[in-house]
Amino acid sequence: MNKIEFTPIGTVHSPFDELEGMPIQPIGAQGIKGEIHLRDDLIPGLKDLDGFSHLTLVYYLHKVKGYSLEVKPFLDNDHHGVFATRSPRRLNPIGISVVKLDSVNENVIEISNVDILNGTPLLDIKPYVPQLYQDTCKDLKIGWFEDKHENAEKTRSDDRFID
Amino acid sequence: MNKIEFTPIGTVHSPFDELEGMPIQPIGAQGIKGEIHLRDDLIPGLKDLDGFSHLTLVYYLHKVKGYSLEVKPFLDNDHHGVFATRSPRRLNPIGISVVKLDSVNENVIEISNVDILNGTPLLDIKPYVPQLYQDTCKDLKIGWFEDKHENAEKTRSDDRFID
Repeated sequence: MNKIEFTPIGTVHSPFDELEGMPIQPIGAQGIKGEIHLRDDLIPGLKDLDGFSHLTLVYYLHKVKGYSLEVKPFLDNDHHGVFATRSPRRLNPIGISVVKLDSVNENVIEISNVDILNGTPLLDIKPYVPQLYQDTCKDLKIGWFEDKHENAEKTRSDDRFID
Repeated sequence: MNKIEFTPIGTVHSPFDELEGMPIQPIGAQGIKGEIHLRDDLIPGLKDLDGFSHLTLVYYLHKVKGYSLEVKPFLDNDHHGVFATRSPRRLNPIGISVVKLDSVNENVIEISNVDILNGTPLLDIKPYVPQLYQDTCKDLKIGWFEDKHENAEKTRSDDRFID
């Protein structure tokens, strides 16, 4: 299949300069502050964004090298298919996080609950509107996360996806 | 900034051959069936996926031409910044949908609640695990969607993002 090309719309700034020791999900990053620096030419695209309390960020996991079809995620000691995990070592290293929107000033967006590496290229910002799909998610099953997800708040990353 | 290259991991098949008349969100696509045809070489990446009831699909909005910084979305008559909407005419045309997982057989994944165009290149599959961020989304505000989102179930797309 053909390659698809994207260009970053800006950069995410956070306190995390190293992958090691980072929170692995927003639940473990409560209160952690960061900033989005949007490209100056895209400022008109932020009109009315300040009406939303939360944003879905889509970003490029730029430090991940290569991919694995089966991975041992941070929250489990078993191997799972990469598509059944949130492991960063994916075929297309795209990360998604739901963060809190604190303020918008020109091209700078202040955000909280940031589980994203400093310097990460941002691909898209979408308003977080769970009402658009929440009703279609009845009888939720979360597979191997079932008795593991409660550890996400305290677990920090190690170097397993860097080397 | 540098360009980022992705390669599709498979294709989404759905009853929607035309953008016009499609549901605009999963809430309007309840019960609509579709299939993911994954690349054969990636089948090991699906291990344990069948334990999940819902998936987050990340895909390339391949029929959208160009972008607009301000758009009039399907649910409103006012213009908003593109990043404050789910409009497909984005800088990087990346779509995200939460769909129901019905079954996994070899490289074919049957799904429901499909609001995705037939033939759409798939970039990533992630398990839908709202427990990993739901607690960080208190006091949710959804901006201009506040008194509009209830129309998402019945609204169908028109040609506004095609031409």
